[in-house]
Amino acid sequence: MTDTPNPALLPNGLSDGLPPRAEHEAAIGDRLLAVVRGHGYQRVKPPLIEFEESLLSGTGRALVHDTFRVMDPVSQRMMGVRPDFTVQIGRIATSRLHQEPRPLRLCYAGQVLRVRGSQLRPERQFTQVGAELIGADEAITTVADAEVVVMAAEALQTAGVTGATIDLTLPTLPAVLFDTHGVPAAARPALRAALDQKDTAAVRERAPSAALGDLLVGLIRATGPADEALAAMAALDLPPAAAQRHADLAALVARIQAARPDPALTVDPLEGRGFEYYTGFGFSIFAPGARGELARGGRYTAGRGDRVEQATGFTVMMDAVLDAIPAPVPPARVLAPEDADPRLVARLRAEGWVVLDALRPLDDPAAEARRLGCSHGLGADGPVVLG
Amino acid sequence: MTDTPNPALLPNGLSDGLPPRAEHEAAIGDRLLAVVRGHGYQRVKPPLIEFEESLLSGTGRALVHDTFRVMDPVSQRMMGVRPDFTVQIGRIATSRLHQEPRPLRLCYAGQVLRVRGSQLRPERQFTQVGAELIGADEAITTVADAEVVVMAAEALQTAGVTGATIDLTLPTLPAVLFDTHGVPAAARPALRAALDQKDTAAVRERAPSAALGDLLVGLIRATGPADEALAAMAALDLPPAAAQRHADLAALVARIQAARPDPALTVDPLEGRGFEYYTGFGFSIFAPGARGELARGGRYTAGRGDRVEQATGFTVMMDAVLDAIPAPVPPARVLAPEDADPRLVARLRAEGWVVLDALRPLDDPAAEARRLGCSHGLGADGPVVLG
Repeated sequence: MTDTPNPALLPNGLSDGLPPRAEHEAAIGDRLLAVVRGHGYQRVKPPLIEFEESLLSGTGRALVHDTFRVMDPVSQRMMGVRPDFTVQIGRIATSRLHQEPRPLRLCYAGQVLRVRGSQLRPERQFTQVGAELIGADEAITTVADAEVVVMAAEALQTAGVTGATIDLTLPTLPAVLFDTHGVPAAARPALRAALDQKDTAAVRERAPSAALGDLLVGLIRATGPADEALAAMAALDLPPAAAQRHADLAALVARIQAARPDPALTVDPLEGRGFEYYTGFGFSIFAPGARGELARGGRYTAGRGDRVEQATGFTVMMDAVLDAIPAPVPPARVLAPEDADPRLVARLRAEGWVVLDALRPLDDPAAEARRLGCSHGLGADGPVVLG
Repeated sequence: MTDTPNPALLPNGLSDGLPPRAEHEAAIGDRLLAVVRGHGYQRVKPPLIEFEESLLSGTGRALVHDTFRVMDPVSQRMMGVRPDFTVQIGRIATSRLHQEPRPLRLCYAGQVLRVRGSQLRPERQFTQVGAELIGADEAITTVADAEVVVMAAEALQTAGVTGATIDLTLPTLPAVLFDTHGVPAAARPALRAALDQKDTAAVRERAPSAALGDLLVGLIRATGPADEALAAMAALDLPPAAAQRHADLAALVARIQAARPDPALTVDPLEGRGFEYYTGFGFSIFAPGARGELARGGRYTAGRGDRVEQATGFTVMMDAVLDAIPAPVPPARVLAPEDADPRLVARLRAEGWVVLDALRPLDDPAAEARRLGCSHGLGADGPVVLG
């Protein structure tokens, strides 16, 4: 079955999942969830829509312009269709589940909607699967962060992803350096933009001092395999607050490497795009074959107001995962004639066979089986491969 | 963890699925899907939102007032959030998959949203799981219909539902009788309302002839266990078109009984509420413990315009199923100390154990395991039940 969208039928960026991809997506999502469940993460299921003031608070502010809004005729208040799960999981953790023991381990799977697609991902609906570790105290930050990164890598590997790279970043590092070097608020956006574009000339030009310019350019260049990048960062004249971030990241890298030698680890210390509301480290996982990142996550503040907790989590983008793994092997399909023994058919189904019932007597069972895309007919003793 | 909703947090009729119910719902949904997959039904996944003219056409017209609508800023056209899957599956079958061999067997699982809840079900978001058999030709209508009803019963039984009752109806029978007896269009709604309320006095009063009044009251009384109801119907003076419906229903009942002797079969020939767009029979499945029906389905016209096909399908309401089956047995949870052998932990997880990693050295591992809701600690050889 083809997947070519018909623009007359569906809005741009929305599509039908067809066989076999829709089934494959569900099966791979189950496999990811089985991994995090094995680590003690319990599933929650927030509603698709909720009040926009809940949905677009805290880390949700980053997605205000991406969120579909609808008026609730019942409450006469505005609601939003979730553009992401993280804010909802934080709300559940810090309200409904605030009395559960910490750290709290939660996971989820479901659909999110965005008003607009991006250039890299024109889609406006995504299947996301993720896990959040909430309320681990400060003394065990590195251990908690490592659990989440290692588990994300394990989950993707279990789903069939090979050749994964984990890219780590320190999204708050620019702000730390801007503070230490007294960069005026008005000058920060332009400097930030130059950093995002890794435009070293613009960084030097916009940095208020040559020392900061040197430092930022040094950090832009301290990008690459984790050990080399960390060493390059260590050679820079980092102020104490930044040096602490470097030490934390080095400790995290060491824990991840000890737990899983397989995924390549890279560091891009200043990468901040998409990590605007992260408070500690951030990470993205890439793999050959996928257009964008397969998963992303990091440390952030869950909840809002006086109910906030530190959390670390990750979200898997299922479409990217499906692009990075082999296509599924089509299951064997058996056509059972109308007069087949129902006990035999039931037994085959219980064993995992797909058995279609013929709905009429067949003159040529093999031809009908082929017409229906079956690989097998059914003999008295069981499935028979079509000749 | 408690499930008490906090009205300040979420809009009326929307709720958070919490542990263990969210996990249970997903697991039971997977079990239902495994059954229909075993019968050759292939999964499709329509988008959450699409153009309202697609979503609210054909059988979708019944849900026009229940559908959340949003403006699409990209196409500048109105879209609706799906209130049901059936219309979307019909669209996919008759457009994207119109060249696939017939009959086409499709299944789905996901969320639907309604603007308003009902008295019986205040919820506005439902998880639906279902299957549709599309394009079986007229000669095998009864066989196709029976496949769907029997499979729905099998799926619910596999999910743990016991004591199910399948209630069959002929939603078009009133219109057939109104036509035969020449009931004017203007008189039909009032007569229909009397039938829906099973108000025999009002039916006799509103029927244009005593013969029709007698017939309709006879049909109201021909409600109950299938064999008795069918016999009672056969004793009535049914016009030929209605007698044909009766004969079709009797053939369907015979096929269902032959395939599955266990669920109780009842017939309520005039029940039409919620079956407005069905073209043949309709059915609902009930079970002790659930507030409303667990599943509903029947025969209808899929697609729209010049691309229509006859179809039979069913939809399972997951909240009702969860209310009708035993609560899940909580999985054993093991707390692994920080210095546990990672190979042992990995092996346990692969065997299906839930193993939480302690994130710090523990003075009293058993106390910490209890605090985290674990049933087991971890010894050198494997899990140890907490004393």
